[in-house]
Amino acid sequence: MRVGWIGLGNMGSGMAANLLKGGHEVTVYNRTPSKAQALVKQGASYAARVADACRGEAVITMLADDSAVEGLVFGDEGVVRSLSKGGIHVSSSTISVALSERMAVAHAASGQRFVSAPVFGRPEAAAAARLFIVVAGAPDAVDTCMPLFEAIGQRTFRFGENPPDANLVKLSGNFLISSVIEALGEALALVGKAGLDRRQYVDFLTSTLFNAPVYKTYGGLIADKQFEPAGFAAPLGFKDNRLVLAAAETLRVPLPLANLVYNRFLTLLAHGGESLDWSAISQLAAEDAGESALPKRAA
Amino acid sequence: MRVGWIGLGNMGSGMAANLLKGGHEVTVYNRTPSKAQALVKQGASYAARVADACRGEAVITMLADDSAVEGLVFGDEGVVRSLSKGGIHVSSSTISVALSERMAVAHAASGQRFVSAPVFGRPEAAAAARLFIVVAGAPDAVDTCMPLFEAIGQRTFRFGENPPDANLVKLSGNFLISSVIEALGEALALVGKAGLDRRQYVDFLTSTLFNAPVYKTYGGLIADKQFEPAGFAAPLGFKDNRLVLAAAETLRVPLPLANLVYNRFLTLLAHGGESLDWSAISQLAAEDAGESALPKRAA
Amino acid sequence: MRVGWIGLGNMGSGMAANLLKGGHEVTVYNRTPSKAQALVKQGASYAARVADACRGEAVITMLADDSAVEGLVFGDEGVVRSLSKGGIHVSSSTISVALSERMAVAHAASGQRFVSAPVFGRPEAAAAARLFIVVAGAPDAVDTCMPLFEAIGQRTFRFGENPPDANLVKLSGNFLISSVIEALGEALALVGKAGLDRRQYVDFLTSTLFNAPVYKTYGGLIADKQFEPAGFAAPLGFKDNRLVLAAAETLRVPLPLANLVYNRFLTLLAHGGESLDWSAISQLAAEDAGESALPKRAA
Amino acid sequence: MRVGWIGLGNMGSGMAANLLKGGHEVTVYNRTPSKAQALVKQGASYAARVADACRGEAVITMLADDSAVEGLVFGDEGVVRSLSKGGIHVSSSTISVALSERMAVAHAASGQRFVSAPVFGRPEAAAAARLFIVVAGAPDAVDTCMPLFEAIGQRTFRFGENPPDANLVKLSGNFLISSVIEALGEALALVGKAGLDRRQYVDFLTSTLFNAPVYKTYGGLIADKQFEPAGFAAPLGFKDNRLVLAAAETLRVPLPLANLVYNRFLTLLAHGGESLDWSAISQLAAEDAGESALPKRAA
Repeated sequence: MRVGWIGLGNMGSGMAANLLKGGHEVTVYNRTPSKAQALVKQGASYAARVADACRGEAVITMLADDSAVEGLVFGDEGVVRSLSKGGIHVSSSTISVALSERMAVAHAASGQRFVSAPVFGRPEAAAAARLFIVVAGAPDAVDTCMPLFEAIGQRTFRFGENPPDANLVKLSGNFLISSVIEALGEALALVGKAGLDRRQYVDFLTSTLFNAPVYKTYGGLIADKQFEPAGFAAPLGFKDNRLVLAAAETLRVPLPLANLVYNRFLTLLAHGGESLDWSAISQLAAEDAGESALPKRAA
Repeated sequence: MRVGWIGLGNMGSGMAANLLKGGHEVTVYNRTPSKAQALVKQGASYAARVADACRGEAVITMLADDSAVEGLVFGDEGVVRSLSKGGIHVSSSTISVALSERMAVAHAASGQRFVSAPVFGRPEAAAAARLFIVVAGAPDAVDTCMPLFEAIGQRTFRFGENPPDANLVKLSGNFLISSVIEALGEALALVGKAGLDRRQYVDFLTSTLFNAPVYKTYGGLIADKQFEPAGFAAPLGFKDNRLVLAAAETLRVPLPLANLVYNRFLTLLAHGGESLDWSAISQLAAEDAGESALPKRAA
Repeated sequence: MRVGWIGLGNMGSGMAANLLKGGHEVTVYNRTPSKAQALVKQGASYAARVADACRGEAVITMLADDSAVEGLVFGDEGVVRSLSKGGIHVSSSTISVALSERMAVAHAASGQRFVSAPVFGRPEAAAAARLFIVVAGAPDAVDTCMPLFEAIGQRTFRFGENPPDANLVKLSGNFLISSVIEALGEALALVGKAGLDRRQYVDFLTSTLFNAPVYKTYGGLIADKQFEPAGFAAPLGFKDNRLVLAAAETLRVPLPLANLVYNRFLTLLAHGGESLDWSAISQLAAEDAGESALPKRAA
Repeated sequence: MRVGWIGLGNMGSGMAANLLKGGHEVTVYNRTPSKAQALVKQGASYAARVADACRGEAVITMLADDSAVEGLVFGDEGVVRSLSKGGIHVSSSTISVALSERMAVAHAASGQRFVSAPVFGRPEAAAAARLFIVVAGAPDAVDTCMPLFEAIGQRTFRFGENPPDANLVKLSGNFLISSVIEALGEALALVGKAGLDRRQYVDFLTSTLFNAPVYKTYGGLIADKQFEPAGFAAPLGFKDNRLVLAAAETLRVPLPLANLVYNRFLTLLAHGGESLDWSAISQLAAEDAGESALPKRAA
């Protein structure tokens, strides 16, 4: 397929490279043009402006947050103005349900198609085409895009026709991951203060009832207090936490566990934890129990 | 080995049967003697009194709670008085860290050995010899008991020499399961109120990042609101929640997520949920969000 | 003084009337003009447009929320465009710290003066000139406005030169009131379920350690479950709760008690409690403890 | 009246002295006899054993906790064994609802009368006979004791015939005070981080809506971070928090705000705050928001 790609961060670069490997014709745009060079060497075309990335059958956006997406999608030279009638905008960024809804409406009004397709996986998974993709949108549009999803992910899950539903699945999924981080943080604060070996404890969990990628990935980081370098930085985790709470507020759904995590993030950021992995919130339970602060934060 | 078995509830019956299948010579005691009949048919000897179950190399207790264990272990004709010098008491009940500590001290004072060996798994797993066993105690005593553990479980994890440590692992493990129930309850309240298919949502989770037995077992029950019959009844889940909070209080470790779960249990029990599975606390998030109460509880 | 008044709701009508009684020359504007009639009868001039209310020494805005204030202050014919150089805008609405900050900046840029002067008190207190006024702004501007504050309130408290500080005091004050409502709700759920007389319990409290207006006002409403008519409706209470949380988020200050109240509001609104007084969140503790829902909400 | 007094701590010494001043004939017992000397100088008789303090019309116990009360009331030479038929035991200690119930039953079985009469007030109030007394018990027994209450308090509140009800009022009252401490801690963390003057803020509150003794006493301590010397030490505050939670657990009443306070106490004690006033939990909100720990605790 002939597609545009907007957004070449940690995740987007790997994903776009996999589209190229999959044989697709890709035109890449990035606000900081230098990041496009590696892709161009791998065969991508270079787009100097957003509009230049909107000339194919579809354009995929993979950006940091609502504000970045809003700027590039709704701006004067943005995606909505630039995409052809019938063209498909695939939004893979982790954004609010409300913004997804706004984009669905705007594209429909412009005779375009909008597919929401956020992804699960850290940068290594993006590079290895091992992402899980959650998709919602008009069936024909989703069908058209399936070859793209196959190139970047290990499996695609379709959640119906309403694009914001995919965003809600993504945000609630991140909430579930954050709940694992909090729960492990509390459990390790407890067994750690009792003198048990944290690593052995996590190994036990992940060999038995909690034998799942999330527990393995985060259990290891948390047991070893290995929060740098950040695979997914605390401010991003906080952003997603606020987005799921915003979606829940609109729907009038109290999420007390998400509020607990919210306060963990606020506490971490109030103590200078911006550069740490979001799993560093786990350490706050141990600090409440009397452990001294992480060297970095105490400094 | 020649061993005694005390406690033939949902879990104990299956475990004792597996000891027999494993070729061990088992004498069974149960407060309600009728429950011993099935085991006797399978080859067990019948003990009319606790003391009669304490004449082998080891005696295993698998009872409902601290109170039951205290009564049978510390009573006038209890395990401490009845076990021979050098005899091993294996405690597999889910009990408090404090009681485990008291038993360790009492058995040591009587020249006996105490091994703490709580198990993970629901009654089906007990019947199928698929339990995970967490063990702590003197190495020689644990070594001696390994054939017993092999007969009843799929894998044994050793956590050092201090018996109460195994209980802390068990209790914190149940806390982690309860945190999964709460997190899934909140996530499903959210996506359910948004109109997504609860089952499809759980299937997605358990095919991807949350591909673990706990999520599969409880995700299905919660998505389907299938809380009867209870595999593990709410009052038992509440008991374990209080035990982990008690252990944490002694160690001065705040566990706010465990407190959240604590209040879910109180709410469920205040509304007549005694006979439901402990995973029914998940439904309270949906009720806070406006769903009507479960038929049983509303009645 | 010659002043304009914008906003004639439950609070504003009484306040503007007291300005008239205090001998001030008042020009009133309200989006729904009919509400101005009563004031005109009492001697006020009528302003057909916002600009007509901005021709005096000062203009006071007393509106429902951020959105209303934004519309009337920043619009093409709004206060910022209409006020003369050196004119004073007194904002008494309960609004966000962020909007107060924006107004301070905009008025300064236009050579005008901005005073933030939110008030404490329910409509009865507004009518009786018994409000407490919290003021922040440039000292000379505040000095100029003191006769106005004296006409509408029983006492004025000055909190320095930074206008948003007064808004933070107001919002945190409402948070403190909401914490009283929650605490009384829990305490009454407990003693009520134990069979004690709720009214007698509150009378005891308010005769002793909790002998303060907030406890007397809300204690009575809560003990008697008298949530209609709403003196301050639940959606307004929820709005203020979100504003204090927003201010705290910006400052990186976790407020777990405010989050607890937040979830009470979400739960109340999810069950149809829009028309109830905000103190109705107190009843949720009793419902968690097994009391049946309020007749209105259950319907 | 001829009465015995058991327990001469910070509170009890002042209360017993006021009985003497009121003209009553008082025999005092204290585990550490030296503390009785001051009272003897003021005219009290000295009791070498508990039984010697039980020979009057009534005996009042004012002890630190459940364990102390249990030991002196139920022991072989305790109050139950020593009091004459028809004699009255007045329990003023802050104890559990469950222990109060047990004493009521035991005294009834022994043909004695039991009055529960816990008090509100700090040691200064005890010394000044300014306590508030909450009483429950058989009307004739309470009537008989009224002269005693008048001698030690400023006002007595009768809560019916069931003695444990008075304990529930006392415990829930302390919960309400702790909720004020938590709420003020959060509010001051917020306005303090925004740069407002903490003292001025509290003065504003206590001059207006929160014009009550609790806010004045604790608002000042919290604004000034004056947690030493402890008027009521953190471990005692924690004890009462656990007692109200225990009573609520028995009644199946979730108290999430009490749980929040519970975790504050655990955190404070995990960081070495045993010797601080219980209001020091207020400071944890500020620490979560980034303030450094109190000098004492950081040491």
